[in-house]
Amino acid sequence: MLTCEIVSVGTELLLGDILDTNAQYLSAQMALLGIAVLHRSTVGDNAARLEETVRGACARSDVVLLTGGLGPTADDLTKEVCAAVMGFELVRDEEVADAIRAFFQRRGTPMPQSNLKQADVPRGGNVFPNANGTAPGMAMERGGKCVILLPGPPHEMRPMFDLQVKPFLQAKTTGVIVSHTVRTMGIGESALAERVAPLLAGGNPTVAPYAKQGESLLRVTARAETAQQAEALMAPVLRRIRDAVGEYIYGIDVEDIQHAVVQALREKKLRLATAESCTAGYISKRITEVPGASDVFDCALVTYSNEMKEKLLGVRHETLAQYGAVSAETAAEMAAGALRVSGADIAVAVTGVAGPGCSEQKPVGLVYIGVADARGTEAIRFDTGRRDREFNRYVTASKALHTVWQRVRSI
Amino acid sequence: MLTCEIVSVGTELLLGDILDTNAQYLSAQMALLGIAVLHRSTVGDNAARLEETVRGACARSDVVLLTGGLGPTADDLTKEVCAAVMGFELVRDEEVADAIRAFFQRRGTPMPQSNLKQADVPRGGNVFPNANGTAPGMAMERGGKCVILLPGPPHEMRPMFDLQVKPFLQAKTTGVIVSHTVRTMGIGESALAERVAPLLAGGNPTVAPYAKQGESLLRVTARAETAQQAEALMAPVLRRIRDAVGEYIYGIDVEDIQHAVVQALREKKLRLATAESCTAGYISKRITEVPGASDVFDCALVTYSNEMKEKLLGVRHETLAQYGAVSAETAAEMAAGALRVSGADIAVAVTGVAGPGCSEQKPVGLVYIGVADARGTEAIRFDTGRRDREFNRYVTASKALHTVWQRVRSI
Repeated sequence: MLTCEIVSVGTELLLGDILDTNAQYLSAQMALLGIAVLHRSTVGDNAARLEETVRGACARSDVVLLTGGLGPTADDLTKEVCAAVMGFELVRDEEVADAIRAFFQRRGTPMPQSNLKQADVPRGGNVFPNANGTAPGMAMERGGKCVILLPGPPHEMRPMFDLQVKPFLQAKTTGVIVSHTVRTMGIGESALAERVAPLLAGGNPTVAPYAKQGESLLRVTARAETAQQAEALMAPVLRRIRDAVGEYIYGIDVEDIQHAVVQALREKKLRLATAESCTAGYISKRITEVPGASDVFDCALVTYSNEMKEKLLGVRHETLAQYGAVSAETAAEMAAGALRVSGADIAVAVTGVAGPGCSEQKPVGLVYIGVADARGTEAIRFDTGRRDREFNRYVTASKALHTVWQRVRSI
Repeated sequence: MLTCEIVSVGTELLLGDILDTNAQYLSAQMALLGIAVLHRSTVGDNAARLEETVRGACARSDVVLLTGGLGPTADDLTKEVCAAVMGFELVRDEEVADAIRAFFQRRGTPMPQSNLKQADVPRGGNVFPNANGTAPGMAMERGGKCVILLPGPPHEMRPMFDLQVKPFLQAKTTGVIVSHTVRTMGIGESALAERVAPLLAGGNPTVAPYAKQGESLLRVTARAETAQQAEALMAPVLRRIRDAVGEYIYGIDVEDIQHAVVQALREKKLRLATAESCTAGYISKRITEVPGASDVFDCALVTYSNEMKEKLLGVRHETLAQYGAVSAETAAEMAAGALRVSGADIAVAVTGVAGPGCSEQKPVGLVYIGVADARGTEAIRFDTGRRDREFNRYVTASKALHTVWQRVRSI
């Protein structure tokens, strides 16, 4: 199996000015290509440290993927350092130079002369033209090692990788790696791991648990000659996972709970409305992250004040006075109100204490979720167990979506 | 100057399953502490490779900051590997064990025995209690090197760093670094940089422009013996920035546009309502990210379908038929409807094409924003210029919030 190291170059990364999304993107792509990423590193625009990093990476790995430092300014050194390490000479490529001139012409701005530096490419290497910027990518191969250079801006790097570098790497690999992600809610990571413990020791396929914002996931990965063989290796493992924790699984390879909800609603031809207090539109925002959500989603009524709960949802004044806004009674009336006002098929409501600020009886993290449909209305109590406002709102929205998913599946 | 290396631990990072926001956060924090980050690396849950990485980091840097791999499962190895490299013995800390038991008790779930592994700490090291999870952080110092371990989940790592690790590191550094962030909307990064060009060449304080999701920022940073001296260095620079681009500035050191809006509404004692189509609750969600938003925020009416725009907001059927849902006319009627229904002092409405899918006249990225208050109603046209759904929704919500901010400031 080929091994790969990803090197992100740029002082702005080490200063924390920008988030390195390239490293994640390329890691995921390598996994799909069946190339093992064992190390990633980040280094600044400093020739000595960059050279040390590239030499170390070449010593350890078959493929070294670098992003960044291909710009026209003096502190862009990636190409020069890599060419020196790999023993390649840089020569002006007139085709690339023309493309750079054309790029500036299309934009109607004069080309700074320094940009022509980007037309220097390693003699005998590969050149990947840049459709979205001026710096071409390139590859240098020697002694069984392959060093690939990509531009730093994600909107230049990604299409270059997808269209040119991926096929280039695919030609070097044999076999495939296929993985499935089992998504669960309602069970913690440790409890999930304990239930599937015998599977965690497996070599091929591997099963790995991880936690992700109120959810627990199992990633099942197999390595084989063909995708079909990989699937055959995984099938019995997936069956055993379903047997062990099936009641917590809301999807396999589904992107997230909102995608699962939209799909479930679509299958049953149902439309949803939400009534939100502490989440204040977060459920609605997440549902509508799914393209085509308009097929199943009508409206959200965000009633942040008690007055709005009465006015827009018809929650009774006495209910609020007697039980408070954060109560099962209020959650149920909010859900019933949203169903009535919207005319949707199912409505979900949340009211809770996201924090900061709480009382003895109503601690931060306490949430009530109401669901209403033609069969009736019910409310459940839920405690996020945390004091983090953003986390509580996210997890509460997830729990509400999961409650809808369960209700719709039961219809 | 102290040097630091940041090591992110986790196979899920190398597989590209999760984005490493910790490395950026810690990089930015180190910069503020005046500690130079010269390398970052990422390594999987593999004892040999982790040990090699920690040894290399310790050889190069004074401080090694690790995140991740402190969990309760067998593949969480960071603590064991670091203790071995630094020559520390791990011993059970009963105080930490009690905290872990209490954490599970609060959640009302039984504690898996494996979690007690997290109560093992290096004898003679520092322990940083975890207020938001079960794994404590820790520090081991020997031979002029300091290895610090932090949990991987950002909501556990960040407060632990801010409240405990930062003061711990501050005691090791001399002098201070203070910075201010000037936040603007309505001007691009290059145009902003051009307007303040003479300031960008300064050495102390430094001025650096950044683009950030539809906003342009200027970061002003000064280094001095005391915070007061640093402020004195920055004052004239901040004045010159205000002179050059004051009309675009919505705040200095304000967290984001939603914080600016809540503050502006509070100052004028006004209450806000929103009517949202394409953003579908995103404006409401962001406003309520600000603790205490309930003082100024009443409700949001998310009307995703045309039917709901008529039913909940009273948008006229003829308006929708004649101009379409994505039009200045609909935006204005949505805003007026939200104002009327909620009884709030000001209402903002958005309707647009977030993508995917569009027509010749209504391209992806086209948005209309309506605002209504006692003085009347108006609508503006806005084009995000992109085809990315999540980006378009975020930037549209920002623009709507900025529109409210401007309106409130003008009252």
